[in-house]
Amino acid sequence: MRLLVANANTTPAITEACAAAARAAAAPGTEIVPATPRFGPAVISSRAENVIAGHALLELLAEHAGKVDACLLAVSHDTALEAARQMMPCPVVGMTEAACLAGCMVGGRFGLVTFGGIETYRELVARHGLSSRLAGLAGVSATPHDAVADPEGVGVKVLAAVADLAAQGADSVVLAGAALAGFDRLLQARAPVALLDGMACGVRMAEMLVSLRLPKPRTGSYAACAGRASLDLSPALAALLRG
Amino acid sequence: MRLLVANANTTPAITEACAAAARAAAAPGTEIVPATPRFGPAVISSRAENVIAGHALLELLAEHAGKVDACLLAVSHDTALEAARQMMPCPVVGMTEAACLAGCMVGGRFGLVTFGGIETYRELVARHGLSSRLAGLAGVSATPHDAVADPEGVGVKVLAAVADLAAQGADSVVLAGAALAGFDRLLQARAPVALLDGMACGVRMAEMLVSLRLPKPRTGSYAACAGRASLDLSPALAALLRG
Amino acid sequence: MRLLVANANTTPAITEACAAAARAAAAPGTEIVPATPRFGPAVISSRAENVIAGHALLELLAEHAGKVDACLLAVSHDTALEAARQMMPCPVVGMTEAACLAGCMVGGRFGLVTFGGIETYRELVARHGLSSRLAGLAGVSATPHDAVADPEGVGVKVLAAVADLAAQGADSVVLAGAALAGFDRLLQARAPVALLDGMACGVRMAEMLVSLRLPKPRTGSYAACAGRASLDLSPALAALLRG
Amino acid sequence: MRLLVANANTTPAITEACAAAARAAAAPGTEIVPATPRFGPAVISSRAENVIAGHALLELLAEHAGKVDACLLAVSHDTALEAARQMMPCPVVGMTEAACLAGCMVGGRFGLVTFGGIETYRELVARHGLSSRLAGLAGVSATPHDAVADPEGVGVKVLAAVADLAAQGADSVVLAGAALAGFDRLLQARAPVALLDGMACGVRMAEMLVSLRLPKPRTGSYAACAGRASLDLSPALAALLRG
Amino acid sequence: MRLLVANANTTPAITEACAAAARAAAAPGTEIVPATPRFGPAVISSRAENVIAGHALLELLAEHAGKVDACLLAVSHDTALEAARQMMPCPVVGMTEAACLAGCMVGGRFGLVTFGGIETYRELVARHGLSSRLAGLAGVSATPHDAVADPEGVGVKVLAAVADLAAQGADSVVLAGAALAGFDRLLQARAPVALLDGMACGVRMAEMLVSLRLPKPRTGSYAACAGRASLDLSPALAALLRG
Amino acid sequence: MRLLVANANTTPAITEACAAAARAAAAPGTEIVPATPRFGPAVISSRAENVIAGHALLELLAEHAGKVDACLLAVSHDTALEAARQMMPCPVVGMTEAACLAGCMVGGRFGLVTFGGIETYRELVARHGLSSRLAGLAGVSATPHDAVADPEGVGVKVLAAVADLAAQGADSVVLAGAALAGFDRLLQARAPVALLDGMACGVRMAEMLVSLRLPKPRTGSYAACAGRASLDLSPALAALLRG
Repeated sequence: MRLLVANANTTPAITEACAAAARAAAAPGTEIVPATPRFGPAVISSRAENVIAGHALLELLAEHAGKVDACLLAVSHDTALEAARQMMPCPVVGMTEAACLAGCMVGGRFGLVTFGGIETYRELVARHGLSSRLAGLAGVSATPHDAVADPEGVGVKVLAAVADLAAQGADSVVLAGAALAGFDRLLQARAPVALLDGMACGVRMAEMLVSLRLPKPRTGSYAACAGRASLDLSPALAALLRG
Repeated sequence: MRLLVANANTTPAITEACAAAARAAAAPGTEIVPATPRFGPAVISSRAENVIAGHALLELLAEHAGKVDACLLAVSHDTALEAARQMMPCPVVGMTEAACLAGCMVGGRFGLVTFGGIETYRELVARHGLSSRLAGLAGVSATPHDAVADPEGVGVKVLAAVADLAAQGADSVVLAGAALAGFDRLLQARAPVALLDGMACGVRMAEMLVSLRLPKPRTGSYAACAGRASLDLSPALAALLRG
Repeated sequence: MRLLVANANTTPAITEACAAAARAAAAPGTEIVPATPRFGPAVISSRAENVIAGHALLELLAEHAGKVDACLLAVSHDTALEAARQMMPCPVVGMTEAACLAGCMVGGRFGLVTFGGIETYRELVARHGLSSRLAGLAGVSATPHDAVADPEGVGVKVLAAVADLAAQGADSVVLAGAALAGFDRLLQARAPVALLDGMACGVRMAEMLVSLRLPKPRTGSYAACAGRASLDLSPALAALLRG
Repeated sequence: MRLLVANANTTPAITEACAAAARAAAAPGTEIVPATPRFGPAVISSRAENVIAGHALLELLAEHAGKVDACLLAVSHDTALEAARQMMPCPVVGMTEAACLAGCMVGGRFGLVTFGGIETYRELVARHGLSSRLAGLAGVSATPHDAVADPEGVGVKVLAAVADLAAQGADSVVLAGAALAGFDRLLQARAPVALLDGMACGVRMAEMLVSLRLPKPRTGSYAACAGRASLDLSPALAALLRG
Repeated sequence: MRLLVANANTTPAITEACAAAARAAAAPGTEIVPATPRFGPAVISSRAENVIAGHALLELLAEHAGKVDACLLAVSHDTALEAARQMMPCPVVGMTEAACLAGCMVGGRFGLVTFGGIETYRELVARHGLSSRLAGLAGVSATPHDAVADPEGVGVKVLAAVADLAAQGADSVVLAGAALAGFDRLLQARAPVALLDGMACGVRMAEMLVSLRLPKPRTGSYAACAGRASLDLSPALAALLRG
Repeated sequence: MRLLVANANTTPAITEACAAAARAAAAPGTEIVPATPRFGPAVISSRAENVIAGHALLELLAEHAGKVDACLLAVSHDTALEAARQMMPCPVVGMTEAACLAGCMVGGRFGLVTFGGIETYRELVARHGLSSRLAGLAGVSATPHDAVADPEGVGVKVLAAVADLAAQGADSVVLAGAALAGFDRLLQARAPVALLDGMACGVRMAEMLVSLRLPKPRTGSYAACAGRASLDLSPALAALLRG
């Protein structure tokens, strides 16, 4: 199967890192197709950037409609996930959604660690209807640059956050944000509970959904668009809206 | 005060109708500044269109940043409302949010009537944290064209939905969707409970917020953007992200 | 318009302070009509006092039915708010309700600071259906007397509570309780998020509701009383129950 | 033990009927002390009446403070229950609360049947934190007069409501409202699930609480009042506020 | 009445201690019938043990079906409570459920103290639908052995937990776990709020339910089993499934 | 990988049917290991049977501990799922849990269709924390025997239920219960939304979890048992409790 790994920001290095993580996690028959939006924020760290990136991501997905078997949104905010699901003819998975649902199957409640602010992640978990499975959130004081320059130092902070969340009742912990990619492998042996990486979970969930061969709904708010007019959108995106 | 009435779709006739409704509702000193996005869906009636319109709306708002005292999003989906609040230096109000909050102050629980599908409105009310104040939703089987061609016939259907929601416990009913604009005045005398029009509520809520002169938060996820890099966005939008 | 500012305790000095705050917040055409109950607690700081004050407040409102355009309950517990709404022929607003709803339109979640116990405010926010919009509550250790004798000292404590709530995710903070009136102006410049004063929000929300000219519900639990018999109530109150 | 059965309306016939029901349900050693408020609504069927009755009920309870071992509020709205608990030195039980909690111990979810409007009962169950245990509410179209004039005819309507609630998942049904007193005995044999009478459950719950000999909280919002000043209240009520 | 006090673990000493506590709490006419399962865990302190004990407990109850007037499950996890209610012809009460519901009638919110992990108690309160009445949970670092060897030392830890929960808003505190039996009497005078013992509450709630003479539901998921086939169960248990 | 497909009832024909369904859904490298409990109910259709089956299932799993890579509980009630997760050294998946989580990734809300009573499934979805993702439940009036004797007739009923749930907002529908196995393939082409089969989803979710190689938690309520004593359990089960 061909799996589109769609970054939502315009930084190719992050796309490449996500694609590498996806390839490392994928089953033998899964081909990873990385892609970067044409426009939008360099990195998403605010509500406004996330909305802009939503359009950029849909434009990007539209170009691959019919050419891939599934899409993995390689952005920890699960940007435009519901819209992408409606629009695309194939399964679409969000990386944080995938990690949270994997956490559900680990059992009990999960925690979530990220760099910086946690409120939009609290809202994201609520948007997925999983607030009662969330034990807590922790925002580590570190930057993506720190994560590259001093992974061990940042790792110690992440481990402290994980231990704190476990003490609050977390039975697993989602690592959210591209900058935390790979920290699950670095830290797992020292962590008291399972660390959940969005790319790994997302790739496997996408494979799982493809294997189920579920049809698209013909009714309701996830049915494909048809007959929708628009102004000055990319040809592929406008075509998908027209149906 | 100058109030931007920002349509989120690209149909100028809807912008004009919204502006007229806003002017009819506004206090004497309120100047209505109507605006239409440069690109995007002609009408928003799907998840994908709503995401695209979010970007278009932010681009539109960015052009007016610093030139208006408040913004009213003239779109019943409260598209990109949270992002607009974060990005803009002035208060931003969503028309359905405004109607729902007015319904809270009417007392008890509100219902919501729209044309067509109701699920995204259910999610919208949940996104605003108001699910426990929602008595029910009703989707009337009619099109915007019907509303213009046969307002009395459509009005009878809307009244039936309102009566049904009142029987379910609604103490007021939000009329959601541009096509229902003006139906509150047409139907109020025949309705058992107050009918809430998003444009009227939104204009008055925006005036209320401006009068309170509240500062923007300096911390948290609603603080203004600063230092954010982006690719190929409109100059005004890119400038607001840079801060 | 004439706006009744109805205190719920029997201390005229608090009525006067609330009326002054209301006049400072009101639009030019709004006449503030202050009123104090005939009986009841000197200050409300317990569940029992709040229930007694509910009757006193309804008796007070009944005397003004038909003579004012709206009522603002000048009591941070939103005492008897739902009953007042049902009974009165005009809009009725609660000051803490108004501040919480304004906080919703600021965006995200709000916090609440008061003097002393916080549990009844937690219940109040739940009664308004807004628990998911509440980031936290803080009870400052100070008395109304302290607030007058050492406003700066108390202000420092309030600011600490505000900062703590902002760190918990509050994007705005409601100042609840008559003793905190005016502290928003004293402290706003030093606070990281907007401070919401119930009297200011309440006056503006009442003006907003009056401008909407919504009818009273004819059915349901907010419809006016009719034909209700009673024993030994004030003539005006008994008359309103009779309808 | 002496159990105060406190009516909240001013109709002595209802007090007597409640007292008779209480005596029928009480354990051998329980003395029923019936009482009727000095002022207030003849019957409570609106939000305004319920607030007025709250004061009347507290005044009534205050006269018996220290002279009874427990209080049962003989009013299906559980009027002023939390305030009464705070104020009184002995346990206080609400009749609908008692029936709902008994329903919890029957298992699963309970339904609730009343005459007329159901919305205030929906709020009451939410106020008790039991919304997730509520299968549904049904308002039978009948009056207290009907219940006396044609109990069998009304009983058929109540049974239909009970069957409907059982089909919605109710494992027991609370009969709420003085007018439904005794219908549990009339209808139980024909009902598919247990019918819960508030007076019977309330008397037994009050006996249960007295037997546990729990102390009053010394801190928090249920601690007794102390040092509270008031104006023109009954001597006994003013004395309890003073502590 | 005859009340079965059914331990869910296989340690007779705990059965005897529970029976003694039950006798101390019971009304004069209540005969306590203690019973211990034939197989299963010595003490329940994990999810797996709790599931195994569920079967053991049902087998034990089945032997007493028709011979007792009510059952009290003497296990703080309310093991198999819903199944026992369905299966048995008489009322069944869980000791922690009983304490939580008594806490509801004390007013406000309750806390819960136990030895060790708190997550399964959080789930238990949620299973009973009472999460909104829960102020907090505290796990004291002590073992059942400590409780016997150094009750005063353990008591100091428990009191600290109780005070902490009261500061979080608890108006009463449930003591959960057999090892905490009797600590309510030891510590009540020094605690700021009521301490709720599951055995005492459970015995009195069982007596209350028996006095109400409620019938078993004839429909729904709590109706008795009938015609169910099984393999290699105890004769009494198999007989109850057959109906 | 070796996947234990553990039936929870004692009917070998159902085990075989589940194993066949599992094999049809499994990836090439997955070996299905079917197993049937030694004792317990022939079919689980009541709360009591479900509790008994929980013990039987744990005993069955214990025999396979260390010999399989994952376990799929082939019982629509997700019997003893949390306990099995705690006890076993490998991932454990419930078939209805798996279908519900797959439904989450389809988008929006899911419905659930079963034969007979729906209340225990409502509780199951709540136990998984997914109530807000549940659009509705439907109990089709049919028996397992009908499903075999007249699949087309039963299928028409199931399709009607699916259409009704879709009209209530379901974007996918879980088919719950062994008797509905295979109906997804029979009916999918005629259904407006995706039909989710628990065995297919469960096999794929188990494969997904195995591929993630997540460690077992070392702390919390899902950590493995250690040092637990027990009486008269199967050797394998007792050994797992001892750790």
